[in-house]
Amino acid sequence: MKILAIGANGVIGKAVVSHLQQDHEVIAVGHSHGDYMVDIENKESIKALYERVGKVDAIISMAGNGQMGSLEEMPESGYHTVLSNKVMGQVNLVRLGLDYLNEGASITLTSGQASNHPMLGTAAIAMGVAAVNAFVATAALELKDGKRINAVSPSMVKETMEQWGIDSGSGIPAIDVATYYQASIDGQQNGEVFNATGGQYEPA
Amino acid sequence: MKILAIGANGVIGKAVVSHLQQDHEVIAVGHSHGDYMVDIENKESIKALYERVGKVDAIISMAGNGQMGSLEEMPESGYHTVLSNKVMGQVNLVRLGLDYLNEGASITLTSGQASNHPMLGTAAIAMGVAAVNAFVATAALELKDGKRINAVSPSMVKETMEQWGIDSGSGIPAIDVATYYQASIDGQQNGEVFNATGGQYEPA
Repeated sequence: MKILAIGANGVIGKAVVSHLQQDHEVIAVGHSHGDYMVDIENKESIKALYERVGKVDAIISMAGNGQMGSLEEMPESGYHTVLSNKVMGQVNLVRLGLDYLNEGASITLTSGQASNHPMLGTAAIAMGVAAVNAFVATAALELKDGKRINAVSPSMVKETMEQWGIDSGSGIPAIDVATYYQASIDGQQNGEVFNATGGQYEPA
Repeated sequence: MKILAIGANGVIGKAVVSHLQQDHEVIAVGHSHGDYMVDIENKESIKALYERVGKVDAIISMAGNGQMGSLEEMPESGYHTVLSNKVMGQVNLVRLGLDYLNEGASITLTSGQASNHPMLGTAAIAMGVAAVNAFVATAALELKDGKRINAVSPSMVKETMEQWGIDSGSGIPAIDVATYYQASIDGQQNGEVFNATGGQYEPA
């Protein structure tokens, strides 16, 4: 498969690219460095990327900025970051990407567990991940030619928690998260949210 | 109780105001007509409303525009309508409204069932209602002084379906929806999404 991996420089992105490269041709796309770059908040940037790469068998988005902050202290810009980037950035990767998918190809977005496990300071992020999950479930109904769309919803990644210096005991290793993206690409699911909350993917 | 009811001119709004007026002082607020008006996309308009009304025992938002449309045909503006109005409009009613709530007062927002029952053409609306539900669940953790926040998530309202000329058999009468807002105001729930999908509210 020819796979376009957007957000390839992050902790999850690196693990996914490394994992999928074993069997596939992976085009790794970053935000600010690498051979291929895209600003997902900019539709022209997304279109230019797709034009350059051409048709693919899978698009994976591991991109999307979030912002933590309390209800009282986070400025409105924090909400807009989430809605413009994590939500509409990924929505536009889908809307503009449909024409660049081969028959039977898939798109996989990234949400997260914030809406399943409410925590202090995560209102904006929880909104964003819930929106991405809802988008995937409804958009799936409208895809044609065997095209599919799913999301991976990872809990906090172990390596990120270690970088932050917080207890990583509850974290999921990035290499385990990668197996859920693989499942989305290889499987037949459409409109599915893969909860990557512990261990590698196992079929239900 | 002194209750501020925003979005009072809609099908749900009229039923809720009529229902709550039996026992409470209800200040009915519309978008474009009535004694009190507010544009929830405009923070200055929200602040001016709250300043004029003063402290209250409950704020109810039944406001929020949505837009239906297929993935291929709906313009990006349709998504922005949902995110700016239904989502950030209601989020800002909360963020700005916290200072105008008496001790033990509640805020109740309105989401909807689109994210629970994926249907064609509802991707943007499903995103919006999922975001509102996630916001309520997380924001609830941060409220102080016994303040509470909930959402009512109604399925399609029977009267609206009749206006549209579609089969209203699965719809919920607006007067039944009103009982869920009453439950949110009268009860002790915080962070709850009241699914108003059939019949009047009954305690679990």
